[in-house]
Amino acid sequence: MIFASDNWAGVHPAIAENLARHSAGFARPYGASDLDKKIEAKFNEIFEREVAVFFVGTGTAANALALAAVNRPGGVSFCHREAHAIEDECGAPEYFTGGARLHPVDGALGRIDPELLEKELARFPPDFVHAGQPMAVSITQATEVGTVYSRQQVRTISEVCKLHGIPLHMDGARFANALVSLDCTAAEMTWKSGVDVVSFGATKNGCWCAEALVFLNPSQARDLPFIRKRAAQLFSKTRFIAAQFEPYLENGLWLDLARHANEMTQRLAGRIRTSSAIRLAHEPQANEIFAIISKSEAERLRAGGAVFYDWNSPHSASFELKADEVLVRLVTSYATTSAEVDALPI
Amino acid sequence: MIFASDNWAGVHPAIAENLARHSAGFARPYGASDLDKKIEAKFNEIFEREVAVFFVGTGTAANALALAAVNRPGGVSFCHREAHAIEDECGAPEYFTGGARLHPVDGALGRIDPELLEKELARFPPDFVHAGQPMAVSITQATEVGTVYSRQQVRTISEVCKLHGIPLHMDGARFANALVSLDCTAAEMTWKSGVDVVSFGATKNGCWCAEALVFLNPSQARDLPFIRKRAAQLFSKTRFIAAQFEPYLENGLWLDLARHANEMTQRLAGRIRTSSAIRLAHEPQANEIFAIISKSEAERLRAGGAVFYDWNSPHSASFELKADEVLVRLVTSYATTSAEVDALPI
Amino acid sequence: MIFASDNWAGVHPAIAENLARHSAGFARPYGASDLDKKIEAKFNEIFEREVAVFFVGTGTAANALALAAVNRPGGVSFCHREAHAIEDECGAPEYFTGGARLHPVDGALGRIDPELLEKELARFPPDFVHAGQPMAVSITQATEVGTVYSRQQVRTISEVCKLHGIPLHMDGARFANALVSLDCTAAEMTWKSGVDVVSFGATKNGCWCAEALVFLNPSQARDLPFIRKRAAQLFSKTRFIAAQFEPYLENGLWLDLARHANEMTQRLAGRIRTSSAIRLAHEPQANEIFAIISKSEAERLRAGGAVFYDWNSPHSASFELKADEVLVRLVTSYATTSAEVDALPI
Amino acid sequence: MIFASDNWAGVHPAIAENLARHSAGFARPYGASDLDKKIEAKFNEIFEREVAVFFVGTGTAANALALAAVNRPGGVSFCHREAHAIEDECGAPEYFTGGARLHPVDGALGRIDPELLEKELARFPPDFVHAGQPMAVSITQATEVGTVYSRQQVRTISEVCKLHGIPLHMDGARFANALVSLDCTAAEMTWKSGVDVVSFGATKNGCWCAEALVFLNPSQARDLPFIRKRAAQLFSKTRFIAAQFEPYLENGLWLDLARHANEMTQRLAGRIRTSSAIRLAHEPQANEIFAIISKSEAERLRAGGAVFYDWNSPHSASFELKADEVLVRLVTSYATTSAEVDALPI
Repeated sequence: MIFASDNWAGVHPAIAENLARHSAGFARPYGASDLDKKIEAKFNEIFEREVAVFFVGTGTAANALALAAVNRPGGVSFCHREAHAIEDECGAPEYFTGGARLHPVDGALGRIDPELLEKELARFPPDFVHAGQPMAVSITQATEVGTVYSRQQVRTISEVCKLHGIPLHMDGARFANALVSLDCTAAEMTWKSGVDVVSFGATKNGCWCAEALVFLNPSQARDLPFIRKRAAQLFSKTRFIAAQFEPYLENGLWLDLARHANEMTQRLAGRIRTSSAIRLAHEPQANEIFAIISKSEAERLRAGGAVFYDWNSPHSASFELKADEVLVRLVTSYATTSAEVDALPI
Repeated sequence: MIFASDNWAGVHPAIAENLARHSAGFARPYGASDLDKKIEAKFNEIFEREVAVFFVGTGTAANALALAAVNRPGGVSFCHREAHAIEDECGAPEYFTGGARLHPVDGALGRIDPELLEKELARFPPDFVHAGQPMAVSITQATEVGTVYSRQQVRTISEVCKLHGIPLHMDGARFANALVSLDCTAAEMTWKSGVDVVSFGATKNGCWCAEALVFLNPSQARDLPFIRKRAAQLFSKTRFIAAQFEPYLENGLWLDLARHANEMTQRLAGRIRTSSAIRLAHEPQANEIFAIISKSEAERLRAGGAVFYDWNSPHSASFELKADEVLVRLVTSYATTSAEVDALPI
Repeated sequence: MIFASDNWAGVHPAIAENLARHSAGFARPYGASDLDKKIEAKFNEIFEREVAVFFVGTGTAANALALAAVNRPGGVSFCHREAHAIEDECGAPEYFTGGARLHPVDGALGRIDPELLEKELARFPPDFVHAGQPMAVSITQATEVGTVYSRQQVRTISEVCKLHGIPLHMDGARFANALVSLDCTAAEMTWKSGVDVVSFGATKNGCWCAEALVFLNPSQARDLPFIRKRAAQLFSKTRFIAAQFEPYLENGLWLDLARHANEMTQRLAGRIRTSSAIRLAHEPQANEIFAIISKSEAERLRAGGAVFYDWNSPHSASFELKADEVLVRLVTSYATTSAEVDALPI
Repeated sequence: MIFASDNWAGVHPAIAENLARHSAGFARPYGASDLDKKIEAKFNEIFEREVAVFFVGTGTAANALALAAVNRPGGVSFCHREAHAIEDECGAPEYFTGGARLHPVDGALGRIDPELLEKELARFPPDFVHAGQPMAVSITQATEVGTVYSRQQVRTISEVCKLHGIPLHMDGARFANALVSLDCTAAEMTWKSGVDVVSFGATKNGCWCAEALVFLNPSQARDLPFIRKRAAQLFSKTRFIAAQFEPYLENGLWLDLARHANEMTQRLAGRIRTSSAIRLAHEPQANEIFAIISKSEAERLRAGGAVFYDWNSPHSASFELKADEVLVRLVTSYATTSAEVDALPI
């Protein structure tokens, strides 16, 4: 019963097989192979427009390079206070931008509150050199607390961005999970809602190492080849990233995997709703559950073989913990089975 | 007839199979799995001492992080004028160190000349703040021109390093090829010859993406976990790098693959020696040949299906090109066949 | 009636004269002149121990280089949410550290709350690579809201630092104002209270450009000469910074100037206390007043020739503004006269 | 007899007096005072067009920020192998650009050879991501070996720049000395010859700390206010830099001072030409002499009170040193007297 994280899972058989299938033979390195080109074209299809795609090795790389691409002197990027970029990337975004700042914005349920965003942006009057200058807003979709921005919510934030002349980045480490949750197209969730750059994650959803940085307006990606290479993210045998994306993006496998993960979360949430041992901190919308449980019950579950993490309470939590309670995170993935979910003794 | 680069090759079947074999199941991410631990221990065995190993995704990452780990304000690293770090990494070492400089040193046949190294180091008197301060020497083994430093040559350079209190880094993108060329142990080629840090490359030798940064003295690697994570090189499913190293390092597969590549180079060199169409620029010692050929002959070979690159002449070349001649590079790999070598119409 | 900032003032006559007096003749550049050496020795005297002193050109440089000196990969420095380093340095600390983060900590009246500091530090478990690693705490003395940390308050924070093995930096842009406010010695306010590094500001207190970075333990400043030079802060004719410090530090001029500035603030505060047009946001302890006033009254004062800034309310303000009210900042300096204070029509 | 460097001199009386004259009173900080604005306008006059001027504290800052302003990912700037930016700035240009590289180009007498420049640029084919991308050429005027680029020589280099779409920066630490040597206008030596950005130095020529970064096309300086502030080079009492420039630029004082320094160099060169103890390495064109002398003679001069530095031989020296000879540098300044020159016992 592994609910620790979706990155504890392995590689989906179709993807493993395709990696093996492409292992023989020779091909041009550094993204110039036919397979690389084919997958790049596939991204155009998925996003319903010509996009600029850059394969990288980790989600942190995608996020950090997205910000490096829109970097400005004294630059400040706005993201949710609990954003992965702030909490879990060891300063990579600041490092790759040579010191551009991540400015935390609050908001309920893991979503940036657009009014608070406006208020924070107001602290940076144009030409007020002391404060620095806004350079981007970054939202995580699905969010770090398992919720999802609606298309309207994305659009509202993108309008704030436009007002301030800054791009909107979407950290899509769980892009597919959000997409099936919203039941819309990738185009609708991104550029049709005002998103400029996407970290398109596939690793957590059944690949072993397949992330892509997608610029929805290719003209903004002119320097990206240099930005990626300088950041040591240009793989020589990059076709093996392409070889993961190939089955992943074919016949909707990526959506099927995400749908399954989300369903396992709903199945687990259903069990939690009827349990007296544990309660939901808030309603899950993707493949992560945040729940409240007494320390002794958590202990009992772990003794029974369940693996999951205690979690820091968000700064703007909508719940309160009693003294003997903890917040825990339970994540499902493409590899989670109904049997596992049902076996959790809650 | 692909002689363009060893990174045009794919993945050795044993490695592809092992990747597939490990694709199922769950495991702790970020280097904490049993498999990760097992492979780390394997490195201790190979280097005959306890080492600190950090898997990363690219050779550029390994080199850049090695230098980041020994970074100093105003730091200057010394490497050969034709070093990969200078010529082919788009400034990654400077970027990851926040601006530490790569200072070129000349030397015949791709090897740093230790006397010139001393002379260059003398330009940096201690406490002369204007010039900056030496922070490392980096040698490439095998070198960028297909030669190999003898153990004594490595030792001589390491003694210069010790005199100046700076560490010696070895860029081992073709570590195995050098090792079989010298017919010695990894310990002998590295710490027994005074090397402190190794970029241990496996990608060019049959893996798809498996590089390791090896600190021969683990106490010098204290900050590396943060350095790697901050640089977006900590993979979540890092066990799939380990899964490549597992068969690679078992039963000497890595040495067998490198030996084969080197033999193919010698076979090709043998053919070149007896050809009137092409001549060796210098004797190859690993898996790369640099040869001189007329433009029309190069054209003819390419028309016949051979793939190889023209190459910039080294600054301190031991040969001269006639007006109609070019220098070309021919690289063999684990995947090169005798048939391919013999088919080259020279 | 200039209450805009102490940096609107000019240069104290004694300092201007000394600059002129040293203008002729030749002297060794880059800090090697007799005058430089003399002033360095004077700092030892003032701090009652051997310190390492580095003259720099701006307070931002002092702060940024202090953090650069204690930099760590994935490093996080803790400072008050309203700290100058966060609010007013355009990202210089992040830039000079290659991306180390400033982590805001709340606390009443501009002072870091040590319990909240502990709580924030707890978010960074050792070896938890994702969050980064604490590298320093920075306090501003006097604070950005015109209050002063008591020696005990400094000590309490330094004890938290020691517990976590990180140094304590003091941004002393208004060091002298705090010192006369506390009526203690520089030694008592710094190393005797656990401070490791000081940005020692003199520009706001009557110099034109005289800032010093003071390491109270010189062994921690080994790389500083390179750090300063690399940051373009090593002036060639550095003796003219020394020439400002010479009269400044002699016969307690610096303390007299600060005492005067503080007295002018108290005189103004006294007038505010009895005014119905304006009220103190909190009690001033150095040379800055934060006061609450209606917009129309502020307008009236400005029409009458008073110069002062509206100010953002602190996040953790101890007061509330009515709809028609603003928070304003009134700063006095060595050059403020009683007449000016008394002329303010409140 | 101080011939060590022009930065051993002090401050010209007219400049010292003006600093003192402006010391009283209040003024807007951060470049917003009337005096700041007046001097900015003066720069327009001197350059005969509207320029964007940014005062900074050191020449290293001016150079480093010039490059930061034209920074590109994987960026490579080309400068002479003996350039100050490479030899004497402790890596500041690399630091401020987050790792952009300085690529050395050879050339006789301290001047970049435009053919070699072309040849080096050819190593960076557009879109060849591995090598990085050219971002600027920087020339020093007067050069580090006391020569001057003719206007035609500047133009030739600027044409190479234009061909490659990169800006031309002029390190004018000794701008005035070059200008009087060429006997042309600032406009002619810069934008009329194709220069885009100038580090305009005044410190070595009679100021204590007055450097300016001048963008000849203001539209290219949009981000400079942030770039300067982030680099800790925005002085609060910046009007005291303006107060130095005021008399410096008035009535041609700057040119008079430089003319005097150059004349002292010619006077000294004249004496050297007729001496048997010392000979010119090459003809001086500004205020620096490079001469060859036996070690014993150098010793004798120093024993007699002369101060000057031994110098590293340039890589592409036009002379040879005998075993007992050294290259020495003799610098004159605005403050050098004929008596001093004539007193040198050669």
